[in-house]
Amino acid sequence: MTSAAIAARHAIRNKQHRGPTAGLAPGFVQGNLAVLPAAQAADFMRFCHLNPKPCPVIGVGEPGSGRIPALGADLDIRTDISEFCVWKDGELVGVVDDLSQVWRDDLVAFVIGCSFSFEEALIEAGIRMRHIERRRNVAMYRTNIATAPAGPFGGPMVVSMRPLKPADAIRAIQITSRFPNVHGAPVHFGDPAAIGIADVTKPDFGDFVGIEPGEVPVFWACGVTPQSAVRAARPSLSITHKPGSMLVTDLRNAQLASF
Amino acid sequence: MTSAAIAARHAIRNKQHRGPTAGLAPGFVQGNLAVLPAAQAADFMRFCHLNPKPCPVIGVGEPGSGRIPALGADLDIRTDISEFCVWKDGELVGVVDDLSQVWRDDLVAFVIGCSFSFEEALIEAGIRMRHIERRRNVAMYRTNIATAPAGPFGGPMVVSMRPLKPADAIRAIQITSRFPNVHGAPVHFGDPAAIGIADVTKPDFGDFVGIEPGEVPVFWACGVTPQSAVRAARPSLSITHKPGSMLVTDLRNAQLASF
Repeated sequence: MTSAAIAARHAIRNKQHRGPTAGLAPGFVQGNLAVLPAAQAADFMRFCHLNPKPCPVIGVGEPGSGRIPALGADLDIRTDISEFCVWKDGELVGVVDDLSQVWRDDLVAFVIGCSFSFEEALIEAGIRMRHIERRRNVAMYRTNIATAPAGPFGGPMVVSMRPLKPADAIRAIQITSRFPNVHGAPVHFGDPAAIGIADVTKPDFGDFVGIEPGEVPVFWACGVTPQSAVRAARPSLSITHKPGSMLVTDLRNAQLASF
Repeated sequence: MTSAAIAARHAIRNKQHRGPTAGLAPGFVQGNLAVLPAAQAADFMRFCHLNPKPCPVIGVGEPGSGRIPALGADLDIRTDISEFCVWKDGELVGVVDDLSQVWRDDLVAFVIGCSFSFEEALIEAGIRMRHIERRRNVAMYRTNIATAPAGPFGGPMVVSMRPLKPADAIRAIQITSRFPNVHGAPVHFGDPAAIGIADVTKPDFGDFVGIEPGEVPVFWACGVTPQSAVRAARPSLSITHKPGSMLVTDLRNAQLASF
């Protein structure tokens, strides 16, 4: 029997599914994509190793290959994501629905964990995610927390913010601590200025969904960090997924839990 | 070879050690004592079961016995604590250094976990405990969080407060989550008024050691909760340890860690 993850990848590969993958193949891990020339790949790998909270690598392909067998036997990132952003020298030059015209023998694919996995665990625990209920993107902010640089890759950590009551925040810290491969525990809660966020109502990416009385903002390291590090490094060519249109893998969210 | 825990108990039993036990037998679990007549013991046991965060039972004696073999083969609570408070009908009637004159055949001893165990783990993780550095008692507060009542036992949860920077608070939540038998994760952080604390600078018990800029108060369920529930229930006789003069057990703090 075909799993929901394989069915989702096939639908994407056959152009039957287009656009965002939120809600597709519940229970399966979805990942962020970053593709770089082999010349930059070692530095980027080291950058991810040095910054595991924003850049948790869950899969790496061999140079020139779109396959990552550890994430799915038939998986090929070149066909299994519905929208790709293609960057040259740090500038967006196109959005394409497969990579056949763009692929090169020296490209290396990185798949990085995504907060979808821990949000599923939080919702199962009864913790409400307001941005999901309102069908908005999570609010994301550039911070004054520096990543550890590696070669051309560096820059500030980007965080996502979810407003929670303290008791839910404590439970969310416990739950997300179990998921080091998808950003793990928060990096901060409370005063946004303490991590360099001047106005929490104005995110750099995504949508602000309010902070109600009795709630505190809770900040997690975010997978936009490596994307923004790649862009700032201005490699001759790089490829990312279009935000929201993720890679659906055969890993289950529950498999990522560390205890 | 005699362990540090057994040596500490013998020193207390032989009246060589008197007073507070903080710092005695590092690495070994120290416990709070509550002794009640058998007529109230079942209700108290149920009260603890219903309120495991403030009332984590780590040992119970048989009616009439001061021994709790699970906490130490030779341990006898009647001789192995240096200062006891004796209460009649909810009023303190005396402080004694052993229970030989007070003991009755119907008394049941309860030993309840204490935050000393998790504070040791926090300090080992590099998280500073200001009240310990300043040799003060931790600040404790009555809250508006109701315990689940059982028979005559009930009343508000008492919490202890430690001021921490958010990143340390997140780490402290992770670490104390591993210790459900010594109060576990915090119950609240941030706004004291949200749990009914009118003035955080004026604790109901213990000492306020300040909240510095960038710190938030973090609140844990506290073992004073069962003591205050016992006092309010006004049993004909009850016995507690004098705060700070704890029962040193043969359990190691590391044994209490759940993962």
